[in-house]
Amino acid sequence: MKKILKKYSIILLTVFVVLSCKEKSTSQIHPDSQLEHPSLILTKQGVKEIRANLGSIPIFDKTLATTQKEINAEIENGFDVPIPKDYSGGYTHETHKKNYVLMQKSGVLYQILQDNKYAKFVKDMLFEYAKQYPTWPIHPKPRSYARGRLFWQCLNDSNWLVYTSQAYDCIYDFLSEEERNTLETDLFRPFADHISKDNPQFFNRVHNHATWGNAAVGMIALAMDDDELLDRALNGVKDENFNPDEKDNDGGYIRKDGQKIGFYANVDEPFSPDGYFTEGPYYQRYASYPFLIFAQALQNKKPEHKVFEYKDGVLLKSITALLNLSNADGEFFLLNDAQKGMSYFNASLISTVDIGYHFGGNNPELLSIAKKQDEVTLDDAGLAVALGIKEGKEKPFVKKSIELSDGAKGDEGAVGILRSDDLELVFKYTAHGLSHGHYDKLSFALFEDGKEVVQDYGMARFVNIEQKGGGNYLKENKTWAKQTIAHNTIVQNETSQFHGKYDIGSKHHSNKYVFSVDNDSLQVASAKEENAYPGTKLHRTLVAIKNSDSDKPYVLDIMNVESENSNQYDLPFYYLGQIMQTSFEYNKYQSPQVLGKSDGYQHLYKEASANANGENIKLTWLLNNQFYSYSAVTSNTDEIILGRIGANDPEFNLRQEPTLILRKKNKKNAVFASVIESHGTYNPVSELAVNAYSNVEKIIVAFNSKNYTAIVIKMKNGKENLFIMSNNNNNSKKEHTLSINGNSYNWRGSYTLINQ
Amino acid sequence: MKKILKKYSIILLTVFVVLSCKEKSTSQIHPDSQLEHPSLILTKQGVKEIRANLGSIPIFDKTLATTQKEINAEIENGFDVPIPKDYSGGYTHETHKKNYVLMQKSGVLYQILQDNKYAKFVKDMLFEYAKQYPTWPIHPKPRSYARGRLFWQCLNDSNWLVYTSQAYDCIYDFLSEEERNTLETDLFRPFADHISKDNPQFFNRVHNHATWGNAAVGMIALAMDDDELLDRALNGVKDENFNPDEKDNDGGYIRKDGQKIGFYANVDEPFSPDGYFTEGPYYQRYASYPFLIFAQALQNKKPEHKVFEYKDGVLLKSITALLNLSNADGEFFLLNDAQKGMSYFNASLISTVDIGYHFGGNNPELLSIAKKQDEVTLDDAGLAVALGIKEGKEKPFVKKSIELSDGAKGDEGAVGILRSDDLELVFKYTAHGLSHGHYDKLSFALFEDGKEVVQDYGMARFVNIEQKGGGNYLKENKTWAKQTIAHNTIVQNETSQFHGKYDIGSKHHSNKYVFSVDNDSLQVASAKEENAYPGTKLHRTLVAIKNSDSDKPYVLDIMNVESENSNQYDLPFYYLGQIMQTSFEYNKYQSPQVLGKSDGYQHLYKEASANANGENIKLTWLLNNQFYSYSAVTSNTDEIILGRIGANDPEFNLRQEPTLILRKKNKKNAVFASVIESHGTYNPVSELAVNAYSNVEKIIVAFNSKNYTAIVIKMKNGKENLFIMSNNNNNSKKEHTLSINGNSYNWRGSYTLINQ
Repeated sequence: MKKILKKYSIILLTVFVVLSCKEKSTSQIHPDSQLEHPSLILTKQGVKEIRANLGSIPIFDKTLATTQKEINAEIENGFDVPIPKDYSGGYTHETHKKNYVLMQKSGVLYQILQDNKYAKFVKDMLFEYAKQYPTWPIHPKPRSYARGRLFWQCLNDSNWLVYTSQAYDCIYDFLSEEERNTLETDLFRPFADHISKDNPQFFNRVHNHATWGNAAVGMIALAMDDDELLDRALNGVKDENFNPDEKDNDGGYIRKDGQKIGFYANVDEPFSPDGYFTEGPYYQRYASYPFLIFAQALQNKKPEHKVFEYKDGVLLKSITALLNLSNADGEFFLLNDAQKGMSYFNASLISTVDIGYHFGGNNPELLSIAKKQDEVTLDDAGLAVALGIKEGKEKPFVKKSIELSDGAKGDEGAVGILRSDDLELVFKYTAHGLSHGHYDKLSFALFEDGKEVVQDYGMARFVNIEQKGGGNYLKENKTWAKQTIAHNTIVQNETSQFHGKYDIGSKHHSNKYVFSVDNDSLQVASAKEENAYPGTKLHRTLVAIKNSDSDKPYVLDIMNVESENSNQYDLPFYYLGQIMQTSFEYNKYQSPQVLGKSDGYQHLYKEASANANGENIKLTWLLNNQFYSYSAVTSNTDEIILGRIGANDPEFNLRQEPTLILRKKNKKNAVFASVIESHGTYNPVSELAVNAYSNVEKIIVAFNSKNYTAIVIKMKNGKENLFIMSNNNNNSKKEHTLSINGNSYNWRGSYTLINQ
Repeated sequence: MKKILKKYSIILLTVFVVLSCKEKSTSQIHPDSQLEHPSLILTKQGVKEIRANLGSIPIFDKTLATTQKEINAEIENGFDVPIPKDYSGGYTHETHKKNYVLMQKSGVLYQILQDNKYAKFVKDMLFEYAKQYPTWPIHPKPRSYARGRLFWQCLNDSNWLVYTSQAYDCIYDFLSEEERNTLETDLFRPFADHISKDNPQFFNRVHNHATWGNAAVGMIALAMDDDELLDRALNGVKDENFNPDEKDNDGGYIRKDGQKIGFYANVDEPFSPDGYFTEGPYYQRYASYPFLIFAQALQNKKPEHKVFEYKDGVLLKSITALLNLSNADGEFFLLNDAQKGMSYFNASLISTVDIGYHFGGNNPELLSIAKKQDEVTLDDAGLAVALGIKEGKEKPFVKKSIELSDGAKGDEGAVGILRSDDLELVFKYTAHGLSHGHYDKLSFALFEDGKEVVQDYGMARFVNIEQKGGGNYLKENKTWAKQTIAHNTIVQNETSQFHGKYDIGSKHHSNKYVFSVDNDSLQVASAKEENAYPGTKLHRTLVAIKNSDSDKPYVLDIMNVESENSNQYDLPFYYLGQIMQTSFEYNKYQSPQVLGKSDGYQHLYKEASANANGENIKLTWLLNNQFYSYSAVTSNTDEIILGRIGANDPEFNLRQEPTLILRKKNKKNAVFASVIESHGTYNPVSELAVNAYSNVEKIIVAFNSKNYTAIVIKMKNGKENLFIMSNNNNNSKKEHTLSINGNSYNWRGSYTLINQ
């Protein structure tokens, strides 16, 4: 029955195309605006308005001039459509990648400038593809679980189609019916089929791969006015043979049995109601382009789908969520697999911001981001932004402390971001993050003014640098970057959380306990993890304190561990920079020793170690001419390890950066309490060191029970800050009374800070 | 006889002071302008002109406003004159240091703003010093060979006096005769005596220490109109008991027997006729302030000395020499002991540039540097600069390739700087550089657009960071930073050049062979060193080639070694960044091994090694998102060591940075030939790698004899560059003929490049 319907719709469509072409020969083209071209990212009305405003919309004009210059040069040079051969970084890969961008840009230029040479460039390239595509077998490189035909993976083929659909839409009316038939028959339909029907293990997922696939098929469907394909894009390929044990080449499961598929499923599941994308901001940045470009096209062409209202407007919410997941320089926080340096200056974010502004109620804060980007998309959305900026409507995009829930329903933990002056602390208590997830529940990273101070390693990959494993994930991504010890969180018995197993990790999430940021001088984020190590409960509280005891805010970190068994607990601290001083004596080895055998420990060198004596330890280090200190409580039998990344790294794939690991041995319960300060500066020109010393005299665990943990931070100025946390009641109205060393304290809510 | 003269001059002076004070009560003050105050950095006429221009000289007005704001706040806060106790970085050290700067600034403000509160601030502080100084014994910290009374070393006491003299000069007329007598008797004269007569081992040297001492005594002499002290400053302390074996705490000899002393000797000896300061730019920057501030004062007060014409105007030449020794960001090249990041934005360079402009014929190029500094000195020189900028006279300071001779007569080698587009290559073939010299003849470093690419380690010291050895030289400076293996030059038999002995090294210098930079596309610097290893001759040629084979210029490096004996030769290459790829297979060790036992080798880890097979080796690395490659010729028995700094470094004083060492074993003669390229970029936002691969296909030593070395660089584009060097005739007119593989080549001059 379905097949009959499909055939029928194809016939209908063919009839319609014939009809519409006939109509074109009359003066009135397409009475129905939904069948007009362009209609994906540009609309007929949009083109009209853009052309009317050209020359008076600086940011748009500038982008247009740059694009025109680039494309003119490329038209001059000619293009190449090489036989597919290489991995990313190689010539054929990079050339096909370049081609789709050129076609998209040239198509847009044709519409805006109405100069046929741009349409011709697209047409010529498309026909070259149409000629060759049918002759290309599956791409020769075997690494992917879903090999493309232009590229080694369907993912990149999908990229190609998302862009090329836009180009096709732009020159649709420039082509004859026969030409369109050729392109659609020889190129677009088989192309769309390859990445969908031929590769359901790629297309039918909830994963950024599938999002690209869905969007690609959806975009070409809209460009070709093909409802069958559109349905496939939105709701997935039906009738596939599904094997629930199948995995992709990153080791992630294809999908769970019974899981929804198609574009809507990809909106439903990975986005939380707050707009957080479960893989993390690096992949959200990557996925946001297909999500939003397709949503834009769908909205333009078929507004009846109300795609921007879907799931309470989550696609629009995801834009501000993503911007909030960037540091002061606009670089995304490292959560799960992520390459450092990716930022909202990425081209996909220009689209994202412009679409967010145009379709999301013209939020003037987005204009300030667009202004920093100094570029807009050459379409209706970009015009809206350019006009907004021209009219001076922009307002600063103020990033505040924010908690973004994870999970389709928002009940699978969250990311908590504490911002206090120049400090930004990212605290991870999320779900696993699909196949890109790291095993690092309750981990954190710290930034100051856009610079990473206490780092998350990110991924072990040099994207598109062919010399490093073809630009793909390196084996150290699995053996190091994903492992718990690579992160600033607890490792029990030298074993990664959830045994480093996706099957286990992806079933669980941490739980928010407290996120309270209304008081700028005392911000608290607290979360619990009870599944990473069965029988062991982890509870971490991160506090940003800003008061007169210190020029800058500082961070109190309390990690409570409670277990049924005796264990070894390691808490690494990945400071970046060079050691200036430690309060403890250590023994530096003649040669660094490999720290362990597996779970990432095999990649760490032990350079020096020390035995704690129960006193505080302090490490002061220098990074980017800033002095930082880490002060921590120890027990008598604790070991301190000064380590460095880089062992068992035969090709120097890892960055040889330092860590301090505080190791507690043979304990059931433990409290790790520490303070991180940014306190001083060094100027290599004046050679002056200002505030080179920590302001913290001593940290004391003043009280610890199942219900309460109290930490005293004695400052060098004589003041004491007593922070008390209620460990098992997070009700903000609850009244507490606690006696510590004969003093009675009363407060309301889950925590209190007493400065005395 | 001398003593009688001295006494006589004191009597004369006293009489004169009495007379001049009497005169002051009349309307005409000081008929002789040489006895006016102020007269050191400000003159009466200068003050008049400054006051007339205030409000219309933006850069001066801005500096004045900043200074006024700073000093007002300090006056508000009050000051402290603590009992001396600490090393640099500590409270008493930093406070006394701060005090002299405050006094200098406040004195100047008094003159310019004519507000008595500034004079009073200086006066109060001076009287506090005058009260306490006589009670202070020698500074308690024992590290210096010449301990001060305010500071742990006379050097810092001298700094104090250089600044304070200016303050005293500014408020001279504000004080009564009695007040002046008190200050001069209780403070200034004993102070000057302490750093000169009491410490001739400090004062009577040719060394930056002595320069500060000489200038300090000279400045206070000028302020007090004391000719005896002035003579001491200019010509040294006579009649000292001199021990030629004595050394300072950096291990340098105090001076050679019979060496001239005093300020003029310090101009004569360390400056070459080109204005290069033999210790290197980092210390020139430090010494330039006393040299020039004192020269300025002497010129203002006693122009008959014609100090700026001394030694053919070398003090003025030294200013442009120093500016030429900075990279594109204005940071000084690392030669000998030097801390990274020091630049012409340092306060002493503001003085230097302003004085250079005012007293050196108003060179408009200096105005562009002053404009970048965005600050001027608040004195006559600063006014001249401010007026020049206001009048739009500035021209760009264009840094070109330049050779700066070393040695008092300019015949002790040189520094050669090749500049080609964004590349800057610094080639060292100098004399030793006094006690701050490193044992690294024929070493080089490479910068691109202000960023160091192939590094000179610099010094092992964190200046003024108290936590690191009191901010002083660390022991690793001697055991690592000064040793040959820490540099990009030849080490024979794992022993530093000159056995790492100052006595030997300071007797020798390298020799310039060729420095030819007129042709922008082919620049050659070539030098020889024949004393570093007796019996072994080193000849290095560095060539900057710019042609159509590559988007950017690249560097050809030819190191010829010729010895009477068989030796091991190590040539380290201190690339900065992360390995992307090597053309050779290496074996990375499970744990890094310490490379050697002494001469700096004990500080290197061997992380991996490889045996060369006679083919080229290539290393491609990534730094600051730029791709670089090093390609080198090898012989069959060569060893390649991938190393890292940091062994035997018990306090993490060293930066753990990488190196590649090419080791040739059991050879008499050897040619090391390599090419260094900057060829590509990586953009972490677009994730695009552009030109990630080297353009060099192969390097071949096509010919090598006593007289000629010929290198072929085969490019990937098929072109070949044949570079031929005449090794024993550097006459630029000489005609050469050489047959290589049956082809005959004819050229004129010491080298040729044939692109075929």
